[in-house]
Amino acid sequence: MLSVRSDRIVRWIGDDCAVLRASGYAAVSTDVMVDGTHFRLGQAAPADIGHRALAAALSDLAAMGAAPAYALLALALPPWALEGADEMLEAYAEAAQQYGIEIIGGDFSRAEKLTISVTAIGRIVTRPLLRSGARPGDRVYLSRPIGGSGAGFALLGKDAAAYEHREFVESAIRRHVDPEPEVALGLALAQISEVTSCIDVSDGLSTDLHHLCDASQCGAEIEKERIPVFSELPAYGRRLGIDVASVVLHGGEEYALLFTSSISESQLSARLGRPVYAIGRITKERGVLLKEDGVARPLEPRGFDHFE
Amino acid sequence: MLSVRSDRIVRWIGDDCAVLRASGYAAVSTDVMVDGTHFRLGQAAPADIGHRALAAALSDLAAMGAAPAYALLALALPPWALEGADEMLEAYAEAAQQYGIEIIGGDFSRAEKLTISVTAIGRIVTRPLLRSGARPGDRVYLSRPIGGSGAGFALLGKDAAAYEHREFVESAIRRHVDPEPEVALGLALAQISEVTSCIDVSDGLSTDLHHLCDASQCGAEIEKERIPVFSELPAYGRRLGIDVASVVLHGGEEYALLFTSSISESQLSARLGRPVYAIGRITKERGVLLKEDGVARPLEPRGFDHFE
Repeated sequence: MLSVRSDRIVRWIGDDCAVLRASGYAAVSTDVMVDGTHFRLGQAAPADIGHRALAAALSDLAAMGAAPAYALLALALPPWALEGADEMLEAYAEAAQQYGIEIIGGDFSRAEKLTISVTAIGRIVTRPLLRSGARPGDRVYLSRPIGGSGAGFALLGKDAAAYEHREFVESAIRRHVDPEPEVALGLALAQISEVTSCIDVSDGLSTDLHHLCDASQCGAEIEKERIPVFSELPAYGRRLGIDVASVVLHGGEEYALLFTSSISESQLSARLGRPVYAIGRITKERGVLLKEDGVARPLEPRGFDHFE
Repeated sequence: MLSVRSDRIVRWIGDDCAVLRASGYAAVSTDVMVDGTHFRLGQAAPADIGHRALAAALSDLAAMGAAPAYALLALALPPWALEGADEMLEAYAEAAQQYGIEIIGGDFSRAEKLTISVTAIGRIVTRPLLRSGARPGDRVYLSRPIGGSGAGFALLGKDAAAYEHREFVESAIRRHVDPEPEVALGLALAQISEVTSCIDVSDGLSTDLHHLCDASQCGAEIEKERIPVFSELPAYGRRLGIDVASVVLHGGEEYALLFTSSISESQLSARLGRPVYAIGRITKERGVLLKEDGVARPLEPRGFDHFE
């Protein structure tokens, strides 16, 4: 009576619910993206929008050290965008294959503005990476250079060809519209017992580091010159009218991982087989400090706040 | 290291994902509701809107015979609606308690129009009730009288006091804005092996019966006079300017269950300890027929289509 598609999915799109055979621990996250807030429908290809909404949900799984398994989509869209919806769904199918995730359900509705909600379900393979495990003395790490997404957002909708640094402009915009969640890294970090906490940089480094410290009931001191910065941003950013310090410290939707560990940068990079970047230390004293030219000042959480 | 809230939830709102301990079969469904399409923010209380979005997701679980377990909410809303959001979240907390569901995660975003996505996760206790199990000869059942939600929608925003049949008008509007998902019935139906298929009436009787027949690769013939109709709708409907046949046959968001079984109405009602209503039979020939005054005519799926 049941149609079994794989050993875990019993019934998917086309019934009232998807039915899954579940065992062990599962991680579940939901993300919503709205035209005019997270993207502008006229400025981005439907495929990019689709991919980006899924990437945000997959990044939550990555930050938890979970392996992507299933996703559900809820699309609310204007009738004139129906054609683009096909492209979007194709992008989902592609991204699903890329990350080994199955789209098991969804819902469609008419709306004035495109709104995409993605619910992602992952399997905890070893242990969940929580925000709350950081301990004083741990090093604070970033998984990759940041600032590209914020720079890309600032340059979005502008004609790359008009710029002197066309290659840089295009790569920054690509980083913004087609972000890569750190799925493989999240899984690898969960297997290293000396990794004590993790979050993804979705609201901005300053805000997400505050989130991590609040959850871990500690503080942090990071060094500005140790923060890895996206490609040629320091060289070209100012000339392009971008506030470099601001997009690096507060720019959201980076989807890099921000995590803590008791072991050194060289040890951790060696064990992971890829570079990761130590940017500071966890402190017993609450609050987040940014050290620049030998002086430490409070780093306020000035990342993305939807209702500022 | 893990904070365990109950024996099944390890970590919920406040980390990147909720982490659940899972076993057995799970049913997962996602529903989206949009201001201007499913409700009008000015005409409905935020608490009702919140309750209604959750009810739609719970109804999907009910149609699957699943026990509600967890829900995730994604709210996209205009800044001026933030105050109403508190009321909405309170309504969720209440509904969650009523149906034994835990809200384990969510996301907030700024938007021009309120959009609510609910993902509900349920446990399959005995077996999943699918749309695809109906067999020729089975009786077609409705769980309760329908037409009230469609009538309520038609009367929405009008001043009940101005009407002669004020009590009826108020009860129809209540049915529309505060629908009750048939959670207990869905669980009971899954335990009766002679119940062969099930769907909830969310798009309208005509459309949902077509869905069920398509999934089961069969047809159906139902009798108009056997369809149970909401309270005084036949008596008052026309006087209030409502197309009674249309709201009964095609009105959506009823959240009654539409199901099939090989056993009789009296047997089934006795085993369930509550009335259910046989309205016709499953046929081998494809297509849905409506019999009225001895004549059977095709019943087209004219229920809710967002992109008609």
